[in-house]
Amino acid sequence: MAKILILPGDGIGPEVMAEVRRIADTLAETHGLAFEFEEGNVGGAAIDAEGAPLAEETLQRALNADAVLLGAVGGPKWDSLPFDQKPERALLRLRKELGLFANLRPAIVFDPLADASSLKPELVRGLDLMIVRELTGGVYFGEPRGIEDIGGGQRRAVNTQVYTSEEIRRVAAVAFELARKRGNRVVSTEKANVMETGVLWREEVTALHAESYNDVSLEHMYADNCAMQLVRQPKQFDVIVTDNLFGDMLSDEAAMLTGSLGMLPSASLGAPDAQGRRKAMYEPVHGSAPDIAGQGVANPLATLLSFAMMLRYSFDHGDAADAVEGAVTRVLDRGLRTPDLVQPGTTKVSTREIGDEIRREI
Amino acid sequence: MAKILILPGDGIGPEVMAEVRRIADTLAETHGLAFEFEEGNVGGAAIDAEGAPLAEETLQRALNADAVLLGAVGGPKWDSLPFDQKPERALLRLRKELGLFANLRPAIVFDPLADASSLKPELVRGLDLMIVRELTGGVYFGEPRGIEDIGGGQRRAVNTQVYTSEEIRRVAAVAFELARKRGNRVVSTEKANVMETGVLWREEVTALHAESYNDVSLEHMYADNCAMQLVRQPKQFDVIVTDNLFGDMLSDEAAMLTGSLGMLPSASLGAPDAQGRRKAMYEPVHGSAPDIAGQGVANPLATLLSFAMMLRYSFDHGDAADAVEGAVTRVLDRGLRTPDLVQPGTTKVSTREIGDEIRREI
Ligand SMILES: CC(C)[C@H](C(=O)O)[C@@H](O)C(=O)O
Ligand SMILES: CC(C)[C@H](C(=O)O)[C@@H](O)C(=O)O
Repeated sequence: MAKILILPGDGIGPEVMAEVRRIADTLAETHGLAFEFEEGNVGGAAIDAEGAPLAEETLQRALNADAVLLGAVGGPKWDSLPFDQKPERALLRLRKELGLFANLRPAIVFDPLADASSLKPELVRGLDLMIVRELTGGVYFGEPRGIEDIGGGQRRAVNTQVYTSEEIRRVAAVAFELARKRGNRVVSTEKANVMETGVLWREEVTALHAESYNDVSLEHMYADNCAMQLVRQPKQFDVIVTDNLFGDMLSDEAAMLTGSLGMLPSASLGAPDAQGRRKAMYEPVHGSAPDIAGQGVANPLATLLSFAMMLRYSFDHGDAADAVEGAVTRVLDRGLRTPDLVQPGTTKVSTREIGDEIRREI
Repeated sequence: MAKILILPGDGIGPEVMAEVRRIADTLAETHGLAFEFEEGNVGGAAIDAEGAPLAEETLQRALNADAVLLGAVGGPKWDSLPFDQKPERALLRLRKELGLFANLRPAIVFDPLADASSLKPELVRGLDLMIVRELTGGVYFGEPRGIEDIGGGQRRAVNTQVYTSEEIRRVAAVAFELARKRGNRVVSTEKANVMETGVLWREEVTALHAESYNDVSLEHMYADNCAMQLVRQPKQFDVIVTDNLFGDMLSDEAAMLTGSLGMLPSASLGAPDAQGRRKAMYEPVHGSAPDIAGQGVANPLATLLSFAMMLRYSFDHGDAADAVEGAVTRVLDRGLRTPDLVQPGTTKVSTREIGDEIRREI
């Protein structure tokens, strides 16, 4: 039986995850899903319970699971901890140890929510773009790194951006494969006008494209221009592939364009093994929202849609994923909204209530 | 007599610069400005004329000038040149050799243009934020850098992000000083949750603030969150201070929020010398727009407003700067627009025509 490790984490993580578990129970009945669920601590919750943001035992369980579903990490309680003890360390460690090099971040505008965007509705209605962010390389993990004293009361800090041909090609391949199932267009983004890592990025993506994916349209765009174009005309994009740091910023910018962060899932995938199975972790794009935690008002839909991505990408349960996504659309169409999405003319519901309605729709 | 070096550059650079020169002549009469203007080549134009994007002699003249006014560089003609021969090299070299460590990029929405933004007008009307970007350090200039063969057909590219205490403090000081003359609020942006350079950045900004600027409000924000917040609620910001690479992306994103790139100036400043004079270069935020070059339809206002910034920051001619900015506002209020800004109900004018109207208003 497939094993799923659930890491609810901090803030609103536990309450949204509880809702997703209940919906998963419903799906087990309706769609015959059979999963073994385990739970573990991560982030601040793990610091409090186990003295570190990711216990060795939890990491082992993640390595042994068929997929990981994560809630959110972080909060003011742990903000003043030193760099290498913060809750976020757990995320970085999980990504690296599980080899999750491809981070898929869709930015989708659900039709009934188009008005929630800061952008004019005509610019975002129907938006459906996918950012593929490299997740285990670049400046996030490059050595040397650190802060040193250089005398005279001065310090000097260093980080290193490193990419190899292989790291670039494997994430670009994920982007091209995805594009083939979507709009068949990839925009590759870097700063090749300033950084050698960008030059290599562009050359390798271009070569891979010529070798294996020349049926897909490919465009190169500098990262600063991409940050502009996302605001100017987001619907020009289908798939964007970029490095770890640019991907961090561009995917958050793209997410905010939708106006409904509470709706956005993500998937982080590793390389396929001999059986074609990839290690994978799924999580909502939003954070732990400590200000509303414990009040039962958090929006569980991004975590639920992350679970749907898991069903689709890790377990080939497209039918069950469709059922979840369809139920979400219908519940929104009926005007039900958690407080983060409430607008005039809609009905405010709690975390539990929207969960119940989703189960009913499934 | 103060010396100004004019570098028109490529694409629309020469034609917008010609217009600004004519307006400067008018100001000489109305406001008694007395400047000595020199011209030089930069970017693609310099590659064609002198074999390199920035001739040594031009660099010397820039070093000897009291201020530099640059048009724009780049174009398809030079796009396939190798990394270190591209037109953009000239910009990077000028910044570094002149020591222009503080790049001031205002994102201002002119009231009659609020509808041009992708964002809902109520989110941008009255927007006036200033991004202070570090311009001579970080990953743009850090060593080691390069691409090496690592065998097996694989290559490895490296760039280095470096910051010292001093580099961080001097640009932060510029941001705090500017904030005092504006809304008195600074947001400092980095990725201290992932990068040691961000940790040092945050610590030095915090220390400088406590020592010398605790009358200014200071907030720290991760760069990915800043990319989001700019879309969500841009008017929350007064001054944003950030590093070279984050500043590149965030300032372009912020510029695009205004919807009228053709209106945005920038200033790049060095350290004050014994007489309190700073080396300085002024340039529009927009690029060389090769697609419309030579047609007489380019918008000269961003370059003109860059010249106004020069009058204010380099020559203490606030009165003449006010006159320029006032004339720009009145011309827009009268509904005159170059093609990039034309909307129903406005009147389309050429580069020359809008220049003439500005001169009349002055
Ligand atoms: C929390 C942080 C370390 C993380 C990152 O920078 O990758 C986050 O911003 C994200 O995008 O998942
Ligand atoms: C042209 C390029 C080198 C430059 C940069 O990245 O700094 C540009 O994008 C800018 O922001 O002035």
